[in-house]
Amino acid sequence: MKAIFITLEGPDGSGKTTVGTLLNQKMTEAGIDFIKTREPGGSPISEKVRNIVLGIGNEEMDPKTEVLLIAGARRQHVVETIRPALAAGKTVLCDRFMDSSLAYQGAGRDMNMEQVLQVNLYAIEDTLPDRTYYLDVPAEVGLARIAANKGREVNRLDKEDITYHEKVQAGYEKVINMFPERFMRVDATKTPEEITETILADILRQLS
Amino acid sequence: MKAIFITLEGPDGSGKTTVGTLLNQKMTEAGIDFIKTREPGGSPISEKVRNIVLGIGNEEMDPKTEVLLIAGARRQHVVETIRPALAAGKTVLCDRFMDSSLAYQGAGRDMNMEQVLQVNLYAIEDTLPDRTYYLDVPAEVGLARIAANKGREVNRLDKEDITYHEKVQAGYEKVINMFPERFMRVDATKTPEEITETILADILRQLS
Repeated sequence: MKAIFITLEGPDGSGKTTVGTLLNQKMTEAGIDFIKTREPGGSPISEKVRNIVLGIGNEEMDPKTEVLLIAGARRQHVVETIRPALAAGKTVLCDRFMDSSLAYQGAGRDMNMEQVLQVNLYAIEDTLPDRTYYLDVPAEVGLARIAANKGREVNRLDKEDITYHEKVQAGYEKVINMFPERFMRVDATKTPEEITETILADILRQLS
Repeated sequence: MKAIFITLEGPDGSGKTTVGTLLNQKMTEAGIDFIKTREPGGSPISEKVRNIVLGIGNEEMDPKTEVLLIAGARRQHVVETIRPALAAGKTVLCDRFMDSSLAYQGAGRDMNMEQVLQVNLYAIEDTLPDRTYYLDVPAEVGLARIAANKGREVNRLDKEDITYHEKVQAGYEKVINMFPERFMRVDATKTPEEITETILADILRQLS
């Protein structure tokens, strides 16, 4: 069985975490040899950078600082975790990757998306995802889910309003237009079980 | 009196720290309105990134990760410390800046210097130094000074050999060729007092 690099993307409240957990379970049951990882983070150094980027108390962070630090964490994640796994024949399932930077930072913070892309391509080189599942959910549904989900850890990036979330979604639409062949759009208003089955079926097709 | 952005550069063992301390004292005595800062670091977020980059235990760090993290710290330093000082009419004296990345990372780690420059220009935009003093010292003299200076804190970047130091020096020569108008080369085999007097005289000329 071949090994591919899969990413999960979507705005906050798209159910990505729940789907990721279910997918982990279903992929294991299906006998797929894979690792599950996430961003920002995914390697010891990258997790330290994550703590700075998401840390309450670092609100003075400039948007370009955020782009550069996350790209640095991503570089380390690629070199230390993603490439070795793929080289060992393991599929990689990653919760957020470069597209999150383009949507959240490029679009969400009104930055030049082409520059954000260039910084990220410097970091990852040819290690682009083979397949990206975009959990598509209206901004108001996503925000309502976040509000309802009281147990969810509050971090700095959540402290933004609906305008920001709408910008992020518009950003994702631009990214999908940039890389249409690797994206698969999944209706995230469905149940996590339905979403997971749809994604798993596609993963099995990709791997066969 | 106008405010300018001054940087001190040089390989390890060039006496930069000693000269920086003396210069701080002499500039104060000369009545110059200035702040002294240093890289990596120079703002609260940047200092946290410094701790990751220089931390013993982070030897797995990829060279591109280092470039991106230091550029991120630099961005924050520019936005939070350097630009506000200049805008308030204060001269900025900074121990290491972009040129250190070009020499230590670009050349010292055999990376593409043009790419390192592009990442750094993304971070600093038009905030290039007005004047850079390069403490010029033969690699073997610099290394002998480091070995003799037992009280000096040992960090990850010091654990390199003479080949690396020679590459760094060759890198600085390339950087000086890229920006000849802002560089002033200072003979760092002289005493710290002589070096400081030479630099102070030039600063006073630049400010007048």
